[in-house]
Amino acid sequence: MSENKIPYKIYLEEAEMPKSWYNLRADMKNKPAPLLNPGTGKPLTAEELSPIFCEELVKQELDETTAYIDIPGEIRDFYKMYRPSPLVRAYCLEKKLDTPAKIYYKFEGNNTSGSHKLNSAIAQAYYAKKQGLKGVTTETGAGQWGTALSMACSYFDLDCKVYMVKVSYEQKPFRREVMRTYGASVVPSPSESTEIGRKILAEHPGTTGSLGCAISEAVEVATKNPGYRYVLGSVLNQVLLHQSVIGLETKTALDKYGIRPDMIIGCAGGGSNLGGLIAPFMGEKLRGEADYRIIAVEPASCPSFTRGRFAYDFCDTGMICPLAKMYTLGSSFIPSANHAGGLRFHGMSSTLSQLYHDGLMEAVSVEQTEVFEAAEQFARVEGILPAPESSHAIRVAINEALKCKETGEEKTIVFGLTGTGYFDLVAYEKFNNGEMSDEIPTDEQIAESLARLPQI
Amino acid sequence: MSENKIPYKIYLEEAEMPKSWYNLRADMKNKPAPLLNPGTGKPLTAEELSPIFCEELVKQELDETTAYIDIPGEIRDFYKMYRPSPLVRAYCLEKKLDTPAKIYYKFEGNNTSGSHKLNSAIAQAYYAKKQGLKGVTTETGAGQWGTALSMACSYFDLDCKVYMVKVSYEQKPFRREVMRTYGASVVPSPSESTEIGRKILAEHPGTTGSLGCAISEAVEVATKNPGYRYVLGSVLNQVLLHQSVIGLETKTALDKYGIRPDMIIGCAGGGSNLGGLIAPFMGEKLRGEADYRIIAVEPASCPSFTRGRFAYDFCDTGMICPLAKMYTLGSSFIPSANHAGGLRFHGMSSTLSQLYHDGLMEAVSVEQTEVFEAAEQFARVEGILPAPESSHAIRVAINEALKCKETGEEKTIVFGLTGTGYFDLVAYEKFNNGEMSDEIPTDEQIAESLARLPQI
Repeated sequence: MSENKIPYKIYLEEAEMPKSWYNLRADMKNKPAPLLNPGTGKPLTAEELSPIFCEELVKQELDETTAYIDIPGEIRDFYKMYRPSPLVRAYCLEKKLDTPAKIYYKFEGNNTSGSHKLNSAIAQAYYAKKQGLKGVTTETGAGQWGTALSMACSYFDLDCKVYMVKVSYEQKPFRREVMRTYGASVVPSPSESTEIGRKILAEHPGTTGSLGCAISEAVEVATKNPGYRYVLGSVLNQVLLHQSVIGLETKTALDKYGIRPDMIIGCAGGGSNLGGLIAPFMGEKLRGEADYRIIAVEPASCPSFTRGRFAYDFCDTGMICPLAKMYTLGSSFIPSANHAGGLRFHGMSSTLSQLYHDGLMEAVSVEQTEVFEAAEQFARVEGILPAPESSHAIRVAINEALKCKETGEEKTIVFGLTGTGYFDLVAYEKFNNGEMSDEIPTDEQIAESLARLPQI
Repeated sequence: MSENKIPYKIYLEEAEMPKSWYNLRADMKNKPAPLLNPGTGKPLTAEELSPIFCEELVKQELDETTAYIDIPGEIRDFYKMYRPSPLVRAYCLEKKLDTPAKIYYKFEGNNTSGSHKLNSAIAQAYYAKKQGLKGVTTETGAGQWGTALSMACSYFDLDCKVYMVKVSYEQKPFRREVMRTYGASVVPSPSESTEIGRKILAEHPGTTGSLGCAISEAVEVATKNPGYRYVLGSVLNQVLLHQSVIGLETKTALDKYGIRPDMIIGCAGGGSNLGGLIAPFMGEKLRGEADYRIIAVEPASCPSFTRGRFAYDFCDTGMICPLAKMYTLGSSFIPSANHAGGLRFHGMSSTLSQLYHDGLMEAVSVEQTEVFEAAEQFARVEGILPAPESSHAIRVAINEALKCKETGEEKTIVFGLTGTGYFDLVAYEKFNNGEMSDEIPTDEQIAESLARLPQI
């Protein structure tokens, strides 16, 4: 099809939407290392995982061989409420940059949760409901995941308890109110409501919390209350599986117009968006059918890929969660308080960690001032106010497009625009006032938290 | 086409998108009364209007006969960045209400300005640019219009000065920051930067401002600075013209699936959304080709249709703007401070006022607590967090659907979901905490402001 036939936004028809998720692990020669029981040091069994996670999700978590897993009809019905998400040709950005590169972005922000997180939230809520549970618990940092989960739970009439990192709870009252509007109960973490919370508060009386600590609290509550399970919005294999809907839609849209990307760029915190976006492309790469540059972008203030170690580590501060083998900065690592937005988890999805370790993808880190510069430039020409997280990918997409301008190459760049920045305007205000700064961890800081890695 | 073929969301193809706006006045037997010069009491000429508005917009403002006006290619290109907006079948809401009614909503919130206001903002910015102007001035209350205009001006590289009602400037810092991110300068109104602002501040030292006062300031700055014009986001004929894109898309989408609505419901402040949504349907009604119930929904705290007078009045507090014949509560009317969100203008579009006066549409007023109840119910099943403004239409759509449940009638309801509520979470918080109250003006309050109507 000739290029001038490519619309600004490519929407798939309902009939073209994915009916299965794609399980990237099935095509990996080197499988991601299994989750370990921190007590025994042995791989966790389905039995051991079921007090924490829903049964069906445990199956998905452990399934390394089934390439395609059917998306249940109820989830596909919900997906129809906000999917397909558009794949947008960034004509205006290209023109502004005066680049021969062709830039596309997959925009996941057009739903009330404001991000891609809803793709997995609805799946996890569905399986919880199907199992006859009363409710689920989770943690949230910047609030995207908590919002998505509260929407999903409201849809299936499930109780939803969100442990929200205290600093976000106080600084992001609006996120909190969205969750409450959807009927969730939101608790600032650390809280007095859990053993681990009381312990952390006793040890660090003034703490404003961390994601790792909120995870510990949510897991404790889920395992101690009958009829409850814990759900997590990133890092896990099951989450990457659900998020593959992003990449599958992207690939179908590109194929429809005969477009072959040269590189695929995504921001990476725990890896949920990146893992979902790249899934079918990485699949082709693993099967030797095609080659793409795949670039993970992380914040310089939380650089697990670029400065972390590939090792077994806890997923939480309280050290009650399973051990995962991943690129990690150590579970005691907390990014500088001046870091805006999400992407603040100390580790990275095991699957993506293995792929990175095997040289199948690249990683780059960027500082937040240059990220907000890219965000502003993008917003002004493309209309959408991007989330700080997503703007990491924008930054690198712009950098790559500018390289094309120098070399004259007409490369095709696809990046993931994971969400909108409506709840991040405190950070934008800082940037608008010229008060934003960059603070990256010293080698000593990273060495210190890595020194506390569990001895496996 | 059979009903089960109707998708959740109907998106038009690029080729199906409107190429002209529809000028409802062309089909009105009783034309809306002309704008009057407040000095002479005579209809304003194009010459008198051009120091305030762009030339092309003056032409559109005064044109009562051309039914279809081409949408310039540059505007259609911009429209493609966020249009077509989806027409959504509210399957989940219908199920929740257990109603035989079929409910559709046209969702205009999927752009960074968060509302339909962008449809006219981009048109007005385009004509300003085409005329070679340096910039435009405007006012904003809740902030939707100011945000939309700052996006449009950033796209065409125009200077944008926004007078923001002081109470919103202080209570909605995030809206302010979105505008600044798009490069607009935002001034709290009343300000010391204008004559009228200084006068109002001298007379009412502690005032937190009003829309009418911000309009006066913006008009003063536009007329005193060479290369600037004033733009307005509602009330005017030109704005209804641009907003007709909403109704045209809606009608095309309905026609595509052979759907005939029984009633069309929209919230009404100045009338921009309602006038746009109903345009082609009202056109059919005026030409005797079809009949629809058309329902304007206004807040009980600012009830211009239901409790105002059909008379000539000023559009602004400073009384420097033209006089418009409209349903009005008097230009000195200010809704109770506890009123959340927009829809707080004292008057109503002349065109809609004439249609209402001629019995061609209905109007109903609703109180804000019941509006937020509808908003919450809608959010929980349909996923979208609606703006308080839009939730007025949701309230009445739900009421009508519940009537159908009683009578067993399978009516088809279409309503306008004008925007999202991400910047209205202070109001949602009040509602979530059970602290929201209703405060409607007394007969005496309305009589008092009506007593000050100009003697025409």
